[in-house]
Amino acid sequence: MNSQIPNQKQNGESSKVIYDRAVQVLTGGVSRNTIFRNPHPYYVASANGSYIKDIDGIERLDFANNMASLIHGHSHPTIINAVISQLHKGTAFTMGSEAEVSFAELLSSRSPEFQKIRFMNSGTEAVMTMIKVARAYTGKPKIAKAEGAYHGTYDYAEISQTAHPGNWGDINKPNPVPVVQGTPQGVMDEVVIYPFNDIERTISLLDQNADQIACVLIDPIPHRVGLFPATNEFVEAIYKWTRKNNALMVFDEVVTYRVNYSGAQNSYTVKPDLTALGKIIGGGFAIGAVAGTSEIMDVLDPRQTFLRHPHSGTFSANPISTTAGRIAMEMFDEQAVANLNALTLTAKRQIAESIKIADVPISITGAGSMFRLHFREKAPTSYREAYQTKETKEIINDLIDYLFIEENIIMINTCSCMFATTLTQQNVDRLSEALLHGFKLIKPKLECLTKPI
Amino acid sequence: MNSQIPNQKQNGESSKVIYDRAVQVLTGGVSRNTIFRNPHPYYVASANGSYIKDIDGIERLDFANNMASLIHGHSHPTIINAVISQLHKGTAFTMGSEAEVSFAELLSSRSPEFQKIRFMNSGTEAVMTMIKVARAYTGKPKIAKAEGAYHGTYDYAEISQTAHPGNWGDINKPNPVPVVQGTPQGVMDEVVIYPFNDIERTISLLDQNADQIACVLIDPIPHRVGLFPATNEFVEAIYKWTRKNNALMVFDEVVTYRVNYSGAQNSYTVKPDLTALGKIIGGGFAIGAVAGTSEIMDVLDPRQTFLRHPHSGTFSANPISTTAGRIAMEMFDEQAVANLNALTLTAKRQIAESIKIADVPISITGAGSMFRLHFREKAPTSYREAYQTKETKEIINDLIDYLFIEENIIMINTCSCMFATTLTQQNVDRLSEALLHGFKLIKPKLECLTKPI
Repeated sequence: MNSQIPNQKQNGESSKVIYDRAVQVLTGGVSRNTIFRNPHPYYVASANGSYIKDIDGIERLDFANNMASLIHGHSHPTIINAVISQLHKGTAFTMGSEAEVSFAELLSSRSPEFQKIRFMNSGTEAVMTMIKVARAYTGKPKIAKAEGAYHGTYDYAEISQTAHPGNWGDINKPNPVPVVQGTPQGVMDEVVIYPFNDIERTISLLDQNADQIACVLIDPIPHRVGLFPATNEFVEAIYKWTRKNNALMVFDEVVTYRVNYSGAQNSYTVKPDLTALGKIIGGGFAIGAVAGTSEIMDVLDPRQTFLRHPHSGTFSANPISTTAGRIAMEMFDEQAVANLNALTLTAKRQIAESIKIADVPISITGAGSMFRLHFREKAPTSYREAYQTKETKEIINDLIDYLFIEENIIMINTCSCMFATTLTQQNVDRLSEALLHGFKLIKPKLECLTKPI
Repeated sequence: MNSQIPNQKQNGESSKVIYDRAVQVLTGGVSRNTIFRNPHPYYVASANGSYIKDIDGIERLDFANNMASLIHGHSHPTIINAVISQLHKGTAFTMGSEAEVSFAELLSSRSPEFQKIRFMNSGTEAVMTMIKVARAYTGKPKIAKAEGAYHGTYDYAEISQTAHPGNWGDINKPNPVPVVQGTPQGVMDEVVIYPFNDIERTISLLDQNADQIACVLIDPIPHRVGLFPATNEFVEAIYKWTRKNNALMVFDEVVTYRVNYSGAQNSYTVKPDLTALGKIIGGGFAIGAVAGTSEIMDVLDPRQTFLRHPHSGTFSANPISTTAGRIAMEMFDEQAVANLNALTLTAKRQIAESIKIADVPISITGAGSMFRLHFREKAPTSYREAYQTKETKEIINDLIDYLFIEENIIMINTCSCMFATTLTQQNVDRLSEALLHGFKLIKPKLECLTKPI
């Protein structure tokens, strides 16, 4: 927390006590870096709808929804009741359960491209399996992915997620930059990094590896790149290239499935061969999935004499995650999607008004029920434009801390919101007002940043 | 099912109906190959303790416990009640929860080597993260793993899991054999395959890659290798080698943690630097974890200026899995471990008696609450000895099907049992009797196999 921000409450005292225990047994006191904040994370007592009460009894309005994973907020009664009913029947077996079949039927009915589905336990596992399926189907080793895009923690998928000006190299041939120290050089050698939405450079880079590429991985609205959508022209260009070069076009919709009844892919004239899903489709429980055409997904079919991709998983397709997921997705019907997206649009308009009133150089990107604020006048159109310097990050931290501590509002630490159906117009009014106060507070620092002497 | 087995009930009719729906939307009709059986999987209506009732109303005695993941059987009331209580408080937040801290404290208290812990969503993620931590700590790219050992679906960890006589090569230098078609050659190049428990050959292979190896990965009682324990001499030899060569010795105890209050590692005079956990520590819910010394686990610490291994995960350390896991592990105390292991020992003795009575060439391996039957007179001591030919696999399938359909008993399809605390002496009597009947049935085929004309 920044000492220049006035009137901080003495909250967080009980969380400090828990954290003092946590650092003894958890690395850095956390099991997910996402929840870390200085000087310590805050701990939840209970969460309901769009409100989270911490163990000091302070209630906050939640616009993060566990990193976009809770489309109906916390503890939704319909989901809870379905899960409790399943709990009494068991949580996992070395046998099938109808829950996995019913849920696959529902997802398949929403997207005709989802001819076949396979469930995993996380988005990381979904992206990993999708890449392995693409390799098994094409027999080729390389993947292409966008600079800056986050796709979970599988080595190949995470290359260049955190690339920075010191290592990202020439935009005509971005360096494959490892995220984890000690990543084998062989991983970097098999990943082609492309600049998102840049057709000419991307096609040129793909052409240089044409006979090696199993799939081009696209998050259609990549959060870490800048949360702006892939253009239809870009997706069409990738699609055409993959048709010509015996490669697959695969989408990571772990985050973006929420933006439309059939996922973000619904907005494009061409569709991916495979899609990775996660987050909201678990109804609040750990899940991942790969969906795609029968012909490609057949590489996973255990009935095949030559099984190209043996795959299992102890908790995959467990009846808790698939039951909670099915109920959540049933409730997230076309009308619910439309209402949520409309409310988010209203929020963006009101925040744009707050930006105007505060007269700060801030822009907004996003789609559907997601948006992100950028600390620059003009919305970024590339990862390198959206990249935050250390100074910008500090200002964002100030704002995020101010909102959390003073306004009791939770946003994602990239300055993003991922809405849930439990949010109301009143909640949105609170958000835009709180942001107006926050913008005014950070304005002096922001002006120093944008107009350096 | 084999047509030679008489008096099959007409069960499975309702499961056939579900499966006919499943094949329309799930690849091969399943989301885990484990549950596949010919001509179709069976679907669960409800499960309680050690009994699973399928949707035709047939109740079976469960010795598989979802591939060793349920140490207290199904729907344990104490776990259910704790989970229901947490459900009303939320299942996942972008904030901390005390549940993750309390659970880490419990695991850490059981093993002094577990100085720091980090949670994931599956055993696959745990092994992947453990390998990445070892690379980040040592700065070296290669791993060594045992031929035939299963460690989840991360490419590097799965190499040679399904090696067979046609591709496994010279035992002095086993080939790194990919499991999934299209696996990049770079993966095989970074994996050294060693023959389990073979000190001389293993050390020689490690020596050939001494400056490259980040970690030697050991499952101390590897199910797919043959479910016999690593000798103390072997583990000591690896330990000494890793001390000399700036490498880590890491254990995959996803399955084997159950065999002792502090995991299988408790039996060895030297301890691993890192341990991957999963299965039973989730109390029936999706989980994974890496535990190890503070110094090594520090590579994950988000407070470090130079963070060597950034790591997060949407559902990691969620309060449902960590609550269920803590309750399950609290109930699996020293006395519960001792009782379960004693019951399993009794089962092995009774099955040995059944083998003797039936006069069949079958042997038993295992440790703690796990055992596996081998269709050979003498228990195997290597993966290559334990390797099942197509003919042996068919006989095992006959036995597994007979037990499932005629005796209403569920075993793992490698002919293994993973016990739960809900099993009783009566259940064990049923198992050894049913196996006696089964052994007699398969005896003619088994004799053809072992005494070829």
